[in-house]
Amino acid sequence: MTTATLLPTQPADIRRIIRAGEYAGVTAGLANGHVQANLAVLPRELAFDFLLFCQRNPRPCPLLEVIEAGAVEPAFTAPGADIRTDVPAYRIYERGELAGEVQSVADLWRDDLVSFLLGCSFSFEAAMSDAGIPLRHQEAGSNVPMYITNIATQPAGIFSGPMVVSMRPIPQEQIVRSVQVTSRFPDTHGAPIHIGNPDAIGIRDIDAPEFGDAVEIRPGETPVFWACGVTPQAVALNCKPPLMITHAPGKMFITDRRDADYAVI
Amino acid sequence: MTTATLLPTQPADIRRIIRAGEYAGVTAGLANGHVQANLAVLPRELAFDFLLFCQRNPRPCPLLEVIEAGAVEPAFTAPGADIRTDVPAYRIYERGELAGEVQSVADLWRDDLVSFLLGCSFSFEAAMSDAGIPLRHQEAGSNVPMYITNIATQPAGIFSGPMVVSMRPIPQEQIVRSVQVTSRFPDTHGAPIHIGNPDAIGIRDIDAPEFGDAVEIRPGETPVFWACGVTPQAVALNCKPPLMITHAPGKMFITDRRDADYAVI
Repeated sequence: MTTATLLPTQPADIRRIIRAGEYAGVTAGLANGHVQANLAVLPRELAFDFLLFCQRNPRPCPLLEVIEAGAVEPAFTAPGADIRTDVPAYRIYERGELAGEVQSVADLWRDDLVSFLLGCSFSFEAAMSDAGIPLRHQEAGSNVPMYITNIATQPAGIFSGPMVVSMRPIPQEQIVRSVQVTSRFPDTHGAPIHIGNPDAIGIRDIDAPEFGDAVEIRPGETPVFWACGVTPQAVALNCKPPLMITHAPGKMFITDRRDADYAVI
Repeated sequence: MTTATLLPTQPADIRRIIRAGEYAGVTAGLANGHVQANLAVLPRELAFDFLLFCQRNPRPCPLLEVIEAGAVEPAFTAPGADIRTDVPAYRIYERGELAGEVQSVADLWRDDLVSFLLGCSFSFEAAMSDAGIPLRHQEAGSNVPMYITNIATQPAGIFSGPMVVSMRPIPQEQIVRSVQVTSRFPDTHGAPIHIGNPDAIGIRDIDAPEFGDAVEIRPGETPVFWACGVTPQAVALNCKPPLMITHAPGKMFITDRRDADYAVI
């Protein structure tokens, strides 16, 4: 099994190794400067409602690409790739329950499956790092803390539920800069959803995130919250679709597109 | 019949007058500071493909809201409004052919119709005016010139075709500013598609626009092109859907949302 440090730097080369089953690890730090994506695959009869859900909730669900039923190539974000094999690990959910984790879904692919690629926070975290804003969870080598809020998403068809947010402690003198820097990337969650008061968005215990790992908030730092790509998965699973396939946590689809391609200004 | 100068200034009040059949004119200049929208209504069986077409072509097709089949209220952008009656005039197309222009489509409404509201250029034109950038077509009291280009849109299902652009002559020293100002509004067409060379995007005669009116390009000015909301209508009609309803040219749906709500930064 290849380790992350031995991997090439270009997206297509990394995807080839993943496709061959030779790398099944996390993708943070791989193909630096390129956009990574969350994956959600649903049967066609749910596709209009899920697409509309994403349109209505662009902060938690920024759509990068939709691969129509009958196709498996992300023609816009990664021409030549195969969405059935090029993610390091997939999770299979049946009626909302985890049924397995696999390195390829080629065996169980069907012609009625529609694939949704959604932006993830790696892009704006790179921009924050470039701006000298510290990222506590990266320093700690842990996963970003994520919380279920009392902010309702805008429903579409059967899809509804609360927004999930990620939290990063920001030194007070860098909060304005963190808003500016992330605002440039609306396709990868964009500007913060909330600054400062966890209670105001229904977070009772900042030290007990629903997903990921708690991080220290130091004196002089303020918790800042961004919409999180876990939201669409949580919402979709909540409605218990007969079949849903996602990437495994932290093991994203690596596109050919550059972070800078998605900066609005 | 009420004239534009006698109309109130608030969107809901104007919509009430339009609904009562007392105003059927153009909406430019009405409810200043509020977002106006292009309308496209299609039967449900085409809705997924059209929604996906918009997702793939956000510059010409910036989706503000989708009203699902069975509903007629734009709950997000104009709560309380009725999409069947609150546009000054509608065009009815059957198999791609204009079949009539009416002030209400309440009579012919069906439960399987899905309504798409798309951003229009009025928002970014207001921002350009505020920045002191001249708008020739407004000075001339004419419609903005629009051209069919050789830029292909990204197809989705049955929908495909060339991008339509609008053109504004910009003094060379204000081109950078016009890029900056319009980039802030990706939901109302955003930054220019092309600067300077009509030929490069397949426009053979700048004095013969396919839609709207030609405008003078003065010495020291450069033609600058933006994606145009006529694109989705042209593309949809091109595929000859059994029924399609749109707003009549220049007679838009006035939302409650403010231009500033859509500025990304």
